Amino acid sequence: MCGGGGGWVGWLNGSMALDPKIAARLKRNADGLVPAIVQQHDTGEVLMLAWMNDEALHLTLTTGSATYWSRSRAKLWVKGATSGNVQHVKSVALDCDADTILVKVDQVGAACHTGDRTCFDADPLELPLG
Amino acid sequence: MCGGGGGWVGWLNGSMALDPKIAARLKRNADGLVPAIVQQHDTGEVLMLAWMNDEALHLTLTTGSATYWSRSRAKLWVKGATSGNVQHVKSVALDCDADTILVKVDQVGAACHTGDRTCFDADPLELPLG
Repeated sequence: MCGGGGGWVGWLNGSMALDPKIAARLKRNADGLVPAIVQQHDTGEVLMLAWMNDEALHLTLTTGSATYWSRSRAKLWVKGATSGNVQHVKSVALDCDADTILVKVDQVGAACHTGDRTCFDADPLELPLG
Repeated sequence: MCGGGGGWVGWLNGSMALDPKIAARLKRNADGLVPAIVQQHDTGEVLMLAWMNDEALHLTLTTGSATYWSRSRAKLWVKGATSGNVQHVKSVALDCDADTILVKVDQVGAACHTGDRTCFDADPLELPLG
């Protein structure tokens, strides 16, 4: 099933569906989503946390452009489609429970909508025992 | 409010409650939890994804030992309390939406219950466009 404006991308690769072997072991939350940690592949910076449904993971694996499910807009979201700050996918892995995805990317420009390089740059919390 | 076996730790630091300024802006899911990305502070390895409630974040910030909410056991969980594979907290940051936490740690031993260094070591997904 294809939804949203990103759906056409899947057709270029001949399949709309996530590999059934991956789909069978993926553990989704009640909304059908899995958290995806996004990391810059060479520096190791954690850029952001996003969410994927099956189609977003399929598109991420098959198009080379990191694609997520936007919970606020309730549609597929090819990261950088509007801003140009795309994420070229370098590797994708599931964790031991298959309920979290690690996506290593090459981030063009800023990952954060605020213009910061990462979404974690602006708000460090004080450590009393620092 | 303190719950579970980890509660006593908070007393040592004089407060059971998360800093109200942090609590006011933290965005929790329907279960009162926030995802925490856990990263090795020096190598940049993403070790695992865990979940925190307010008390877990408070304890992480004030004890120096990464503490989470175990969704499967429904109680606070000081990482490594049983295995010895503790996580010494180096920094904690909120993301731009205050709905994700990045915890940089010094991981003793393996982060994953399987014995792997990270929870993402065992299950890389194939990239057709690799």
